[in-house]
This record gives sequence, C-alpha cells and structure tokens, in this order.
Amino acid sequence: MPVYKAPVEDFLFLVLDVFPLERHSNLPGFADMTSGTLKMILAEASKLAEEAFVPSNPVGDQEGCTWHPDGSVTTPNGFKEAYEDYTSGGWMGLSASVDFGRQGLPATLNAVMQEFLCSANLALSMHFGLTQGAIAVVLARGTQEQKKIFVPKMVEGAWTGTMNLTEPHCGTDLGLLKTKAVPNGDGSYAISGTKIFISAGEHDMAENIVHLVLARIEGAPAGTKGISLFVAPKFIVNDDGSVGERNGVSCGSIEHKMGIHGNATCVVNYDGAKGWLIGQENRGLNAMFVMMNEARLAAGVAGLSQSEVAYQNAVACAKDRLQGRSLTGAKFPDKPADPIIVHPDVRRTLLSIKAFNEAARALVVWTALKSDIAHRSSDEAERQSADDHMGLMTPVVKGVLTDLGFANAVKAQQMFGGHGYIEEWGMSQFVRDARITQIYEGANGIQAMDLVGRKLGKDGGRAIMGFFNEVGAFCQENAGDDTLKGFIAPLQEGLSHLQQATMWFMQNAMAKPDNAGAGATDFMHLFGLVAMGYMWAKMAKVAHSKKQQGNGVAEKMDAKLLTGRFFMERLMPETASRLACIQAGSDTIMEMPTHLF
Amino acid sequence: MPVYKAPVEDFLFLVLDVFPLERHSNLPGFADMTSGTLKMILAEASKLAEEAFVPSNPVGDQEGCTWHPDGSVTTPNGFKEAYEDYTSGGWMGLSASVDFGRQGLPATLNAVMQEFLCSANLALSMHFGLTQGAIAVVLARGTQEQKKIFVPKMVEGAWTGTMNLTEPHCGTDLGLLKTKAVPNGDGSYAISGTKIFISAGEHDMAENIVHLVLARIEGAPAGTKGISLFVAPKFIVNDDGSVGERNGVSCGSIEHKMGIHGNATCVVNYDGAKGWLIGQENRGLNAMFVMMNEARLAAGVAGLSQSEVAYQNAVACAKDRLQGRSLTGAKFPDKPADPIIVHPDVRRTLLSIKAFNEAARALVVWTALKSDIAHRSSDEAERQSADDHMGLMTPVVKGVLTDLGFANAVKAQQMFGGHGYIEEWGMSQFVRDARITQIYEGANGIQAMDLVGRKLGKDGGRAIMGFFNEVGAFCQENAGDDTLKGFIAPLQEGLSHLQQATMWFMQNAMAKPDNAGAGATDFMHLFGLVAMGYMWAKMAKVAHSKKQQGNGVAEKMDAKLLTGRFFMERLMPETASRLACIQAGSDTIMEMPTHLF
Repeated sequence: MPVYKAPVEDFLFLVLDVFPLERHSNLPGFADMTSGTLKMILAEASKLAEEAFVPSNPVGDQEGCTWHPDGSVTTPNGFKEAYEDYTSGGWMGLSASVDFGRQGLPATLNAVMQEFLCSANLALSMHFGLTQGAIAVVLARGTQEQKKIFVPKMVEGAWTGTMNLTEPHCGTDLGLLKTKAVPNGDGSYAISGTKIFISAGEHDMAENIVHLVLARIEGAPAGTKGISLFVAPKFIVNDDGSVGERNGVSCGSIEHKMGIHGNATCVVNYDGAKGWLIGQENRGLNAMFVMMNEARLAAGVAGLSQSEVAYQNAVACAKDRLQGRSLTGAKFPDKPADPIIVHPDVRRTLLSIKAFNEAARALVVWTALKSDIAHRSSDEAERQSADDHMGLMTPVVKGVLTDLGFANAVKAQQMFGGHGYIEEWGMSQFVRDARITQIYEGANGIQAMDLVGRKLGKDGGRAIMGFFNEVGAFCQENAGDDTLKGFIAPLQEGLSHLQQATMWFMQNAMAKPDNAGAGATDFMHLFGLVAMGYMWAKMAKVAHSKKQQGNGVAEKMDAKLLTGRFFMERLMPETASRLACIQAGSDTIMEMPTHLF
Repeated sequence: MPVYKAPVEDFLFLVLDVFPLERHSNLPGFADMTSGTLKMILAEASKLAEEAFVPSNPVGDQEGCTWHPDGSVTTPNGFKEAYEDYTSGGWMGLSASVDFGRQGLPATLNAVMQEFLCSANLALSMHFGLTQGAIAVVLARGTQEQKKIFVPKMVEGAWTGTMNLTEPHCGTDLGLLKTKAVPNGDGSYAISGTKIFISAGEHDMAENIVHLVLARIEGAPAGTKGISLFVAPKFIVNDDGSVGERNGVSCGSIEHKMGIHGNATCVVNYDGAKGWLIGQENRGLNAMFVMMNEARLAAGVAGLSQSEVAYQNAVACAKDRLQGRSLTGAKFPDKPADPIIVHPDVRRTLLSIKAFNEAARALVVWTALKSDIAHRSSDEAERQSADDHMGLMTPVVKGVLTDLGFANAVKAQQMFGGHGYIEEWGMSQFVRDARITQIYEGANGIQAMDLVGRKLGKDGGRAIMGFFNEVGAFCQENAGDDTLKGFIAPLQEGLSHLQQATMWFMQNAMAKPDNAGAGATDFMHLFGLVAMGYMWAKMAKVAHSKKQQGNGVAEKMDAKLLTGRFFMERLMPETASRLACIQAGSDTIMEMPTHLF
C-alpha cells in the first residue's frame, strides 16, 4: 500500500519564509496569516488528505466508476465518504468570498490544498476540482440571480461543477463545435449536442451537477466568435432553490482510460436541455477562460502532486530494498546487502525529483499569490503586474509541471525494479494517473503555443520584460553574496539563454511564424527551468538566513541548500540545449513532405 | 484499431546499402545475402507480423492471460494460432546452426524479425523471445546430450525456453539467491525454491517449457560465486526424446501488470524439481550471461519496436485529425480545419521519433552484424574487435533504446489529445507495454553501471578506444565533404563531449568510484546520442551517393537526409548538457543525509 505524508513543512517554509503571506495583510482575507493560523490550517488539510483521501486511491483505480443503463454513475467505494469529509470541513469554500458566508482565505492556500488532495487521490479530487473554477465563472460573468442560485450550493459542495467544451470532432479547435442552443422564449435555451471527455460529468456524490456548456446560438457566426456559454444543471432548480425536475442532459457512457479510473470521463448528451446564458452572447469562450486558467494552474499542481507522492514511495523503497553493495564498500555489513539508496545513480534519480518538486511547489505558491494579488489588491499597478505574471506563468506551470511530473513518476517507478510494473505496488497508478495531466485542460503543445504565440508579445512584451527584470535584479543584488555562489551564476546563465531565445523569436518569428511553432515546446521548458532556478535561488537565500538564526532548523536548511545545488548542477545545464534547439528554427521541420513522414 | 506496416524498405536500406551483408559473404550463412533473397525474407517476415501478429495485440491487452487453480495458464485468443504461423514458417531457427537442420542465416536478420514482431505484438513475441537465448546457452555450455535433447525441439519452436533468475528478495543482486539444488545421485539435482517475474513461465502454446534456472548447490560458497545453472523442463524428457512425466515445477500465480498483459509473468515454484547442471558447478552466472546479453539486445529492439509502431499511428492521426489552422494560413481551406501535421510542433514531435527510430534501427543492425562476425568469423582479430563492440554496445542499446522507445511512445500518444488516453485507441497499450523494456533484463540504471563500471575500462579501454577511432576517422575522412556539412560538425562535437566525459571518469572516478556512479546514466545517454549521430552520418553519406544514382529513390533519400539533419539539429545538442551533468560529479549527491531525502 503506497504511503503519503503531506509536505506541510515545505509549504510552511514557502508561505512563512519565502513568500510570507503576512506581508500582504492589507489584502482581504490575508489579515490572519500568522504562523499559528497557517500551521493549523495545513495540519487539518494534511489530515484530510492522509486519512480520508489516501485509502480509497487504489480502490478507485481497481474498481473504477460504474455506468448504469439508466445513465447513472456509481463512484468507487469510499469516494462519497471522503468527499463528505471534504465538504463538511468547509474546504470547498476556503477562499470563496465572505459574501457567500465563507472564510475568504487566500487562494494560495487552495493551491496547497490541491497538491495535498491530488497526491492523496487524484481521481477523487477531480470530482470537485472544477467546481472552484465553475464558481469563479459564475461570479465573474453570471447575473445576480445566477450567482444566488448556483454559487452558495457549489461553495458548500452540495453541487459540483463541470466544464463542457470538447465534442467528438473537436477539442483544441473549439471553433468547430456544433452543440446548438435555441431560445425557448422564456429567457432559457434548449441545448442539443454531444460533449465528450467531461470529467465527473455524472456521479453519485452530489445532489446536483452544474454543467457549464459551450454551444452555438442558432444563427450565430461560425468559428470561435459564435460560441456562447450556458449553465445547464442536471436538475432544474426550483424557485426556492431546491432541486426540481431532471433536465434533458444525461451521461451516455463513460470512457475506459489509461488512468484516473476513479473519475468518470463522460459522454454527456444534451437533448434539448434547458440552459441559461452566462455573460454575453457569442462571448462564451472568453467567459470560459476564467475557468480554463484556474483549471490549467490546477493541472500543473496535479502534475506536481503525482511527482511528490511517487517520490515519497520511491524514497521509502530505496531505503528498504536491499540489493548489492555501495561502490565504496559495504555500508551495512551486517545486512545481506546495502539498501539501494547508497548508490549514486539512485540518489541522483531521487534528487532530480526532489529538486523539481520543491522548486515547482515554490512556483505554484508564487503564482497563486499573484492570483490573490491580481484579484484582491486595491493598487492598480500591483494588480496589473500580478495579472501579467499569471498570464505568462499559467502555460508554464501547466506544461512544465505536468511534463516533468509525469517523467518523475516514471523515474520513481523505476526505483522498484520489476515490482514497479506490478499494479499491487501502486507505482503504476501514479504513472498512469499523472499521464492525463499532460493532456487535459489543453495539451502541452497548446500551452507552449499559448506562451510563445500569445503571452510573449502581449502588451508589447510587458509580462516577460517584468520577469527578466525581476530575475536580473535578483542576480545583480546577490552577485556578491558568497553563500549564493553556486546559485547565481547558473541562474544568470539560464536567464541569458532565455533572453537569447526570446530575442531570437523577435528577430525570426515575426516574419516566419513557423519558427515560433518549432521552438515553442523548447521555449516553454527553458522558461520553466529558469523560473524554477529563480525559485531555488530565492529559497537558498532564505535558507542561509534561517540557518544563521540557529533555531534548530540548520540541518533541514542544509538539505534545502544541497537540493538546490543539485538543481543548479544537474537540471539547469539543459537550458543550453533548449536554446540550441530553438535556434535551429523550422526549416528542416517544414521541408519534410507530409507523405514521407 | 492501431495500424502497423513493417519498415521493410528502411531495413533494406541498412542491409543492402549502409551495412551490406553481401560484403561478408565469407561468413557462414552469409553466402546468399543478395538483394533478391533479402527482399524475399523481409517480405515474408513483414507478412507474418502484419497479418498474423497484429490482430491479437489489442486482444491480448484486454483479455490478458488466465491462471487456473491447477497451475495452467491460458493465453489470449489468437496467440496460439499466431505462434503456429511463426513456428511453421521456420522463423525460430532462422539463424540456428545448420547442424540442427536449419538455415543458419545471419543473426542480423533475427534482429530485423524481432523488431517487426515486437511492434506487431510485444506480449506474444515475449512468449518465445527468450527461446533463442536458451538455445544459445545450451549450445554454448551444454553437454552433447543436452544439446541433442533440447536444441532441436526449441529450434522448431515445439518447446519454448525461459530464464529463471529473480527471486522475491533479489533481482539485480543475484548473490542473494536462495533456490537450492541437491544432488539426486543419478547425475540430476532436486531443485527447490521460488522464482518470480518469469516471462512465459507457463502457457499453452508449446508442448514443453525448458526452464533455465539459477540455483545454489548444497554447500556452495555464498554470493555470486556459488551459483550454478540448471535445465529443468516442465515435462521430463523420455529417452526417445518424447515428453514424459510432469516435473516438480509449477506456476503458483501470475502478476497483474501495467502492460504486456498477454504475457504471463509467473511465480514459478520448484518443489524438488529434477534439473541437470549446465556447464560447470558455480559458474552459472557466467553461463547465464550468454543468454542475458542476447536478451538485453532484444530488449533494446523491443523498446525501438514500440517507438516505431506508436510513431506510425501518430503519423496517421496527425494526417487525419483536423484541428485549427496552419500558422501561415489555411492549408486546406476547403476542409473545416487543417490536419494537425501542418503545425511545426507536431512535425517536430514526429520527426524526433522518426529520427530516433531510423538511427536506433541502424545501431541494432550494426551491432547484430558485429554479433554475427564475433560468432562466425575465422579471423581472430576481426572476432575480437566485433566482440569488443558487442560488449560495449549491449548496455547502450538496451538502456538508450528502451528509455527513448518509451519516451517516444508517450510523445506519439500525445498527438491524439484526449483520445490517446482512451484504451480503445491503442496508444495507451504501446506506452504501457514499452514501459517494461526499461525494467526487465537489468533495469537501465544497471545497464549504465555495466557500461561505466565494467565495459569502459575492460582490456585497458580497448573497446571504447576502437569506437573513438572509428568515429574520429569517419569525421576526418569526410570533413571536406560539403554534402555532409550539417552532419560531421555536430558529430565531431558530440564525440568530443563523449571523449571529455570518458577522460573525466579516468581522472576522477578511479580514486572515487561514486563519481562514476553519479555520471553513469548521463554517460550512457551521451554515448547513445553519439552512436546514433554516427549512424546518421553514415546513412547520410550513403543517401547522398544513392541520390546521385538517380534510380527513382531521390525523394526517399531526401527524406533520409532531412530526418538526419533534424537529428543533428535537435537531438545532438543534448550531448553538451549530459557532459555538464557528468562533470558535476558526486559530491552534492553523496552529501545529502539519507534521512533528509
């Protein structure tokens, strides 16, 4: 049975020392982010993850969800109870506005929560993961009445939310979508069409499901400019807010997938279902992007979550599995063999995962904090700069944390030898579950194109220039700090590679967009390395100063510094080869005739 | 339903043009390796793969093998029939010696065969894949009588062979093994113990199963120096060669695995089973390595095979899937969207797989040909040099072709978007099946250690110096060839990185072996890149000269050259970062206290 212990201490290091939330006490909801409060919240969150979510994770993988001929779906044993623990703890509304009777705490804490719960049970977490995004959409674009009807129920977790975009013939290219909406004359629309890949599109864990669905109003323009967003609940809501008659929306089947078996991926059929317009006609994609951006950050966190839980199990195995002897002589001569953690190649593998996990976690906290600032600050300049950061970093967090999250789950599985391939050991599940994070919420190639094609040049490159300035200034300020010697030089080199790549795009991709496409994925990963390298440099600085305090944390801070040094020595060198690939351009790639692939 | 077409043309390019088998007509079995013969053999082989093996591949994944309480195992629907097609075609004995009534054709052709059959159906191919290794062991170390009893039956495929090494507490570290052998007094031994992870340890496709099993003779020394090799058939063989009474060996259960569901991975219980010593007492590991080396090369081919079949399906999808428009304007304005193959990032992904596949295939043919030379040449110097090559390249082929084979199957799956995650599309199976190749026959970390710890320094580094000399000479000879401009410079740079890495080990790992361990995996991959880069340079030279012949192959040769250029531009840059990682050494890695991982 796999183990999992929520990385509470590491998160506390981030929210207390590296990005102290207390410093933002002027923001709504940040008033009481003291060490005591944060420790209490994280302790409760870790308890929920470890005790309520972990046990049903392998169960969900083995049992899967069951679709019944009446269109209902049963979730695996234990899921319902775990979800009740989640909602009764008030976790869904953790960061929801106090207008809805909730705590209004920082969304940053939600990101922490997401990592814990996804590590513990990704398939289960996906049942309600999109609900927060659905809440955000209704709050941002819905009418007062829609907010009143749907938000409180979703905030309390009594109803869950879904996101209905994909159709059998279109995923990435939503301009092709065919689902149609015909006005009923009473303000509602009759929605007809088929949506696929709808996560938690049907289940037995909540009394209603709030489908947010993209459709084309009769007579709307073709392409993406004719798409509107509707809310179409599974059960029509009565005037008193209670659940009424069944709507014309049903689950036609569920998919047989590589992983996340515990989450029903549904074909959802709309058969004249009643729906209500959210936001303006034909502005549906724009409205959906409120949800999409939340979902993309959450996908990145999900990628990290599988890397973390797989890592913890790999460490346990490496300490436990006795095979062979250390290259420098037996370390445990009294045992029949040494544990494999004595081997440099095993340590290198484990450290490469650990060094990523801790940097990725910092990147998530940094970005989530920017999201709080963008939504809550009263200072317009601060809001804008935070929003720039969010836009720029969303595809990086989604693409890089899921690509490396998956790769790390595979590396962790490898530590088990043949046992890693046997389902009972649980490592296969982490790999299979992690795999979806690279695909959903926009496949990673799309993230790379979003970054390079949209985010880089936006507002004259304001966001990327802001990033360059911040990292550059940090390097300059700390260039003379001997304790950061192993950090600043590689970070500066990585930054220079990133700047050269950006410059190369400016010079070569304006006239020839294929050069941008050909380098997009390498650029995204180059960016991810530099962003994580910056996180390590910041963490190293804090770790050094904490060490001076000598309050019993020296050993842990030394481990931080070693892990960071490993990142600089072993992961940062890749920035050079990423740059070389980008600068190779698109000629060879585009020259190959299609029929000769 | 996934597609597969055996890459016959690409193999013909290799065995006719790049490494012309005809040039070795002095070797036994190579007399008739003309274009006509080779085309005929490959056409037949491809037919077997495409028609007999492909259809039951998804069936095997879905049905799996079934273990019955009497210890018998039923294989999936269609496996038996496909295996009959294989044996009745005489394929098992393709390269077996004419002493056993077979064709004695080059083992190189076996490697081709392996790729075809593993692409078509890896789980099925693994049922008999080890039989050729078992034949090799019995031929190399068995008595005349053992050869007479076991070899002809295995050559005709009536009996299959297995390799029994792993036990519940030991895989990599065979010194720990406990299975014991007690002399029966009649020349046979009573073998008792439990072996795990035995591929095709029980099945219903052959009338007997020849288990080659490692065990410790009572009173033998501890560790690896007390291990002997035995043959213990499922059924005792009567004096007339017919199958007699059941031996005390049985399948206790089969594993529930991530992939290769169609192959039974067995727990095999030896309960005083009758076994006969093969080779000398306590020299079992040495004897087993005859089989192990064959199995490692075959594992590399299996990795490549999944990359190839996944690639073919990804190309079909990329040509077929309509999403979005080309960055340079609609390419198919009459269709609702362009096929995704217009996008540079999709082409980059596909080319990165294709460029690997063709180089890896060349590396396999080159190495298999060396194996033929090592076994068949009458020239001792030639045999030695070929054997050097084999020893050096075996861990590289195993480790690199399986790591990249798996990574490529994942990339190919990504082309399908959400559909790639749905089992019915078949891409998940390629990923799950490919995963085992990184683990079995010695996990890839072990391959890296074998390369760096054993093979590099062997015979004063004779093998690696031979490789450096050959590649260096090629670069020098062709430095002035303008048509090879994009090939020689990156190859030379990669070679220089590899030489620097080797030098670094010489200077830093002798006194401090942890430096070798810490850099082993990076070194293996650096080596793989240079070896594949060399293959591309050789292929490019041949492609240019074939183009001059103008015999209607110009377009295909241009595609070769483009693919090779892609490899040089996009895959070779990684050699620099691999070198940097190696040179980072082991200090940081070893300094981390175990309890702080």
